[in-house]
Amino acid sequence: MEQRVSLITLGVSDVPASRAFYERLGWTVAMDVQETVFFRIGGSVLTLWGRDKLAEDSGVSDNGGWGGITLAHNVRSREEVDAIIERANQAGATITREPAETFYGGYAGVFTDPDGHAWEVAHNPGFTLEDDGSLRLPEG
Amino acid sequence: MEQRVSLITLGVSDVPASRAFYERLGWTVAMDVQETVFFRIGGSVLTLWGRDKLAEDSGVSDNGGWGGITLAHNVRSREEVDAIIERANQAGATITREPAETFYGGYAGVFTDPDGHAWEVAHNPGFTLEDDGSLRLPEG
Repeated sequence: MEQRVSLITLGVSDVPASRAFYERLGWTVAMDVQETVFFRIGGSVLTLWGRDKLAEDSGVSDNGGWGGITLAHNVRSREEVDAIIERANQAGATITREPAETFYGGYAGVFTDPDGHAWEVAHNPGFTLEDDGSLRLPEG
Repeated sequence: MEQRVSLITLGVSDVPASRAFYERLGWTVAMDVQETVFFRIGGSVLTLWGRDKLAEDSGVSDNGGWGGITLAHNVRSREEVDAIIERANQAGATITREPAETFYGGYAGVFTDPDGHAWEVAHNPGFTLEDDGSLRLPEG
């Protein structure tokens, strides 16, 4: 199995409402078909789809709430962390952690989207963010 | 907010056991520091970290179980879907959906890792998989 994630699908309760939330963050939809919304994220895709359908399609039961996955959006400065957390707040997110110093020497805040999916917005000086937005770990 | 996911962090109950599972799938660790394991996935990173720590760090409460996110790993043929699902089974995954035709004209199966994180392994002839593993949507 090669090392890649082609799509990240977020199960949501209301696809158009979730789409509108991500658009308020500044994102642009690439496709919207069959009640499924696709956003390009680098060489991968973030998808919004009904959470009930996703649970059934995945063959899993759903306890509701957060399920042990957090997405991180790294940026190039502390000021960008503050600006994005503020924009998310205005877009209707819940700020679950105000921007602050992190244990790894960075600066980050966390918001959850309208369905409780968690996004850390982080400036990590140890991880280089390339011009194309890809992340480079220290070794590589 | 630009469109990217820099890291996908999977909260797990036993980091070394989860690391060993992904290694049995054929993955190679890039970094293992402070009970945190990092795998390169294209221009992003998949991280394994203690689920309790991740919940606290994300400022969320944890109901346990699946939480509305499924990851997809797209491949170039139906045979690859079968092979990866079989390898995951041998590695200790739970096969939650045996490989079969999908509603979108593809072929896919789903497994969950030892912590219940869901991976769809899919051949979708409508989405081009580039040589570098990145996914190209029909429009672009």
